[in-house]
Amino acid sequence: MADLFYIPKAEFDRVRSLDLNAADKALLFADMCRLNCLYMIAKAGSGHIGTSFSCLDILTWLHLFEMNANDIAFSSKGHDAPALYSLLLAQGVLEFENIHSLRRLGGLPGHPDVDTPGIVTNTGSLGMGVSKAKGLARAARMDGKPCRIFVLTGDGELQEGQFWESLPGAVNQGFPEITVIVDHNKFQSDVTVAETSDLGDLEAKFQAFGWEVRRVDGHDIPALAKALREVTAAERPGAVIADTIKGKGVRRFEHTTMPDDERYYRFHSGCPTAELVDEGLAELRERIDDVLRVAGVAPLEVAWVAREMVATPAGRIERLVPAYGRALLDAARRDRRIVALDADLRLDCGLVDFERELPERFIECGIAEQDMVSQAGGLALRGYLPVCHSFACFLGPRPNEQIYNNATEKTKIVYMGNLAGVVPGGPGHSHQSVRDIAILKGVPGMLQAEPCCEAEVPGLLEHFLARHDGPAYLRMCILPCEIGFELPAGYVPETGRGCVLREGNDAVLISYGPVMLEQACRAAELLAREGVSLRVANLPWLNRVDPRWLADMLADVRALITVDNHYIEGGQGETIAAAMADAGLSTPLLRLGLTGTPPCGRNDEVLSAVGLDAGSLAQAVRRALGLAD
Amino acid sequence: MADLFYIPKAEFDRVRSLDLNAADKALLFADMCRLNCLYMIAKAGSGHIGTSFSCLDILTWLHLFEMNANDIAFSSKGHDAPALYSLLLAQGVLEFENIHSLRRLGGLPGHPDVDTPGIVTNTGSLGMGVSKAKGLARAARMDGKPCRIFVLTGDGELQEGQFWESLPGAVNQGFPEITVIVDHNKFQSDVTVAETSDLGDLEAKFQAFGWEVRRVDGHDIPALAKALREVTAAERPGAVIADTIKGKGVRRFEHTTMPDDERYYRFHSGCPTAELVDEGLAELRERIDDVLRVAGVAPLEVAWVAREMVATPAGRIERLVPAYGRALLDAARRDRRIVALDADLRLDCGLVDFERELPERFIECGIAEQDMVSQAGGLALRGYLPVCHSFACFLGPRPNEQIYNNATEKTKIVYMGNLAGVVPGGPGHSHQSVRDIAILKGVPGMLQAEPCCEAEVPGLLEHFLARHDGPAYLRMCILPCEIGFELPAGYVPETGRGCVLREGNDAVLISYGPVMLEQACRAAELLAREGVSLRVANLPWLNRVDPRWLADMLADVRALITVDNHYIEGGQGETIAAAMADAGLSTPLLRLGLTGTPPCGRNDEVLSAVGLDAGSLAQAVRRALGLAD
Repeated sequence: MADLFYIPKAEFDRVRSLDLNAADKALLFADMCRLNCLYMIAKAGSGHIGTSFSCLDILTWLHLFEMNANDIAFSSKGHDAPALYSLLLAQGVLEFENIHSLRRLGGLPGHPDVDTPGIVTNTGSLGMGVSKAKGLARAARMDGKPCRIFVLTGDGELQEGQFWESLPGAVNQGFPEITVIVDHNKFQSDVTVAETSDLGDLEAKFQAFGWEVRRVDGHDIPALAKALREVTAAERPGAVIADTIKGKGVRRFEHTTMPDDERYYRFHSGCPTAELVDEGLAELRERIDDVLRVAGVAPLEVAWVAREMVATPAGRIERLVPAYGRALLDAARRDRRIVALDADLRLDCGLVDFERELPERFIECGIAEQDMVSQAGGLALRGYLPVCHSFACFLGPRPNEQIYNNATEKTKIVYMGNLAGVVPGGPGHSHQSVRDIAILKGVPGMLQAEPCCEAEVPGLLEHFLARHDGPAYLRMCILPCEIGFELPAGYVPETGRGCVLREGNDAVLISYGPVMLEQACRAAELLAREGVSLRVANLPWLNRVDPRWLADMLADVRALITVDNHYIEGGQGETIAAAMADAGLSTPLLRLGLTGTPPCGRNDEVLSAVGLDAGSLAQAVRRALGLAD
Repeated sequence: MADLFYIPKAEFDRVRSLDLNAADKALLFADMCRLNCLYMIAKAGSGHIGTSFSCLDILTWLHLFEMNANDIAFSSKGHDAPALYSLLLAQGVLEFENIHSLRRLGGLPGHPDVDTPGIVTNTGSLGMGVSKAKGLARAARMDGKPCRIFVLTGDGELQEGQFWESLPGAVNQGFPEITVIVDHNKFQSDVTVAETSDLGDLEAKFQAFGWEVRRVDGHDIPALAKALREVTAAERPGAVIADTIKGKGVRRFEHTTMPDDERYYRFHSGCPTAELVDEGLAELRERIDDVLRVAGVAPLEVAWVAREMVATPAGRIERLVPAYGRALLDAARRDRRIVALDADLRLDCGLVDFERELPERFIECGIAEQDMVSQAGGLALRGYLPVCHSFACFLGPRPNEQIYNNATEKTKIVYMGNLAGVVPGGPGHSHQSVRDIAILKGVPGMLQAEPCCEAEVPGLLEHFLARHDGPAYLRMCILPCEIGFELPAGYVPETGRGCVLREGNDAVLISYGPVMLEQACRAAELLAREGVSLRVANLPWLNRVDPRWLADMLADVRALITVDNHYIEGGQGETIAAAMADAGLSTPLLRLGLTGTPPCGRNDEVLSAVGLDAGSLAQAVRRALGLAD
């Protein structure tokens, strides 16, 4: 495998000083940014190529030629962060060494964060852009420093209600300084926008909402520049619908080169194969060199970096989400009331087979979680058993009122919140769901659980679907996990009761899910070498604990350590602690979990940074036992 | 004061059998329903007259003449429940005796609930109607029993993002059986829709979203019938924008009779004066009798009911929200960074003076909580100090992801959640905010507090604005409260620490807010007569407790009782219990609060039903002390 290469800052400076017309220079610069963007994503091992590439011509034009000093531009979709980083690196806003630190601790987060120079606002949670822009615009006026604000949105993002909620105020309260640019690259997470939830006549929609609108080819710089000129000159807020190509700039990434029979776009997130990366880097370099040659200047000088080898895990790898997909399909074969609803994450949520086999009971709602949950409410009122899917970071908070509303109808709905927990750490805090347990508390009758391994998935799902009388929340880890423990033979989930994964009698550690329990078992291993005997118990129930089971667990140990893959506040540990107080159990207790906003980084970096890796857990146990400070 | 009267069921039966054309009969029937509606609201002491009256012609036409047996109609806005009840009573769907039990325990809830016969779905939380309808429509099809579904919405409600989020799916997934009827009565909670957040060209919006749309006078039955015929015949979902008059049917309630210099509509919620009620009843009766006379039949027979006298409270009444409004305005005079944002509740949230004095720092967002909170985010990024206002039942859950997103930017924003707690009990569970503490947990740095009396308001607000470093949630009781306790002299709020309102040494009760602390003090009074000495402590902090303060409180008592005006799960009691476990405090603990969906009813009925009135608290203390089972 060849090494990776990127374009050093000096080359960007050289290109900026070339005698080219603005449009040609922008396109050249954008391709150079694409190359660095691809390098960063390849180095990080994940990132959003498709959407970064589709908007880079637009972003480059904005930052190099359109914006004045006071003007602001930010991305509402947020997952095009690598594109913006590549530009900010090229412009010297970000220290260039950061090019090597995408999605690394202390580096450039997977989604925008204001701690990064040049980042205006935190996004990654969708649909917030125009609202934020209105606040920024008003503040700028109050400061006596009015400015123009450009908000880049995705197209799938326009399925979010907040986007449409935010438009009227911009007209009614008079914000002509706001311009929305829709990066209309036609594909969202899974399939096309048109298939997922078609946007219809988007120009007519913006017009009906009172916005000045233009539609252009987003890769045609003169057309884009003209459209921006016109809408920013108008006396009302403006929208430019930029038709773009997802993955633009590398043939194999471009959605327009997909075979006719291919439905899923492969370069939304994650990282292409090394071969495809090499091909992409080469293609971009060749095109850049072509332009430089025509301009009569030297070809690109690039810098090479050795590819890092990713260590293959030694242990057993378990994939809980596919196990979930199989279990749900099995259940749905038996129970015709089961209906699966999805919010543009069917691949990630393991629903592809379900859709293929039971299309009439699969509802794709698009990025519209509130709509999905209330639709589920309607189905449940008629006796169906809906199962709603999204990432936990969205499913917990965005349709929170809708989930409660459904619960007040005393119907039964299962909510599956995927990508829960502090890892994967690469996408950053907008995607690290560490509040979902707390924010689904107080929903009458709602039971929450997280499985810790493939074997635990079907039992918990079955418990929710067939035994628990009320709504339920199934929290899922999306990572393939290296797992060294096994469930006890004959284990059957029983509400509020857990099981012991590893015996021990000095202290007991209670947790849930594959990530924490694996770290806990490794901590127990570390401690065993010192003669400290740690029992590790799996309590899959996140908001219930049986006081008798808890008393049994505490009967013969000197300390309890609870470990939350969640904020301590509102997590499982709080439920356990409260149950101890209720029952008068006074075993010394140490509660671990998150406190501040979780950092972005590689999984091992993040677990260590938040004190939840095996070493930190072992040290906490020592502290709890009075063996360390 | 004259007695009240209503129209008995037999009179509706008589009118149905009259030889009148359908349109005239519908209008007559609607006026009769208005009369009963006004009776119900007068009897209950509160209800939404304006919106009930504006839609009654539409509702009557739908239920009496438009709908087939399988068809469904429901209100998405929900606060027109009295209108629907009056129809369901007249039709015999509801037992007629229920006419006397609006907003009473076991009676007809303030907002729709599926436990009531004839109610399709729970609403009151806005913007969910079309989403619910899609679920219902799909279920009906899967059942092989397709039907038409009519969704009545408000106009202010269309400011909610979910409404627009729900429209495209109805087109893309083909739901021609769904018809939206917008009760466009031009006024929302406070002022006109146009002034709050203008809807712009509503017809163009529906059209742009691919819906078949008609616009008619909502009180012109033939025009309405024609529009419904046309849109339901179309092959796509349909919308009828019905221009209506808020309060239609009683001159003094009609928004069109408001003096030009009157900005606030007075009959949105609450109850008119006895004089206005009498005037309204008389006007309706007269018009009904006119029609009956022309039809050549006997005049209306009505039934009389004695007006109940409302007892004047004996003690001191405190109004926390006006105190809050004054404190915020004072603070804003001193600190020009403070900006108040409102979501169509400026009257209820005490912001009228703020808007008058500092209009440039008052932002009316309309019923658009997500947009409001993200706007606040933009302002905060630029150094302003936004204070967001809504009812707690909406502010906690609807913009939950937006609140978290703001917090990850490490800016400071204060959220004021009004109408928190289980009372007032009249509006029903959509408005009884008993989850807000839980769902705002895990927001990094967020501190939550609820003041217990007017005197505590300024100090807590000041603590949030000037001392606490991070976001804050101020939970407010909207009720004027009879309060017998006083804060200790020299009391200054200090995070996590409370104060003793009444000394005692057998047990300590910890709670917060005016309602629970007043009940607790009364419980202490009851217990004192039996020689049981209950200390009552006010801990305004909802998600923090100082372990030293807690240890002091528990040092010399035999039991702790925590009382949450909130679900037990995720409430203050859970934080206290967890703190006890953390600190190894093993005082016997009893945690009180809500468990299931709160009932609707008069405040005293509700407090008693959920076991949180003084008598129930006293009994709980006896149990905690082993003096009762």
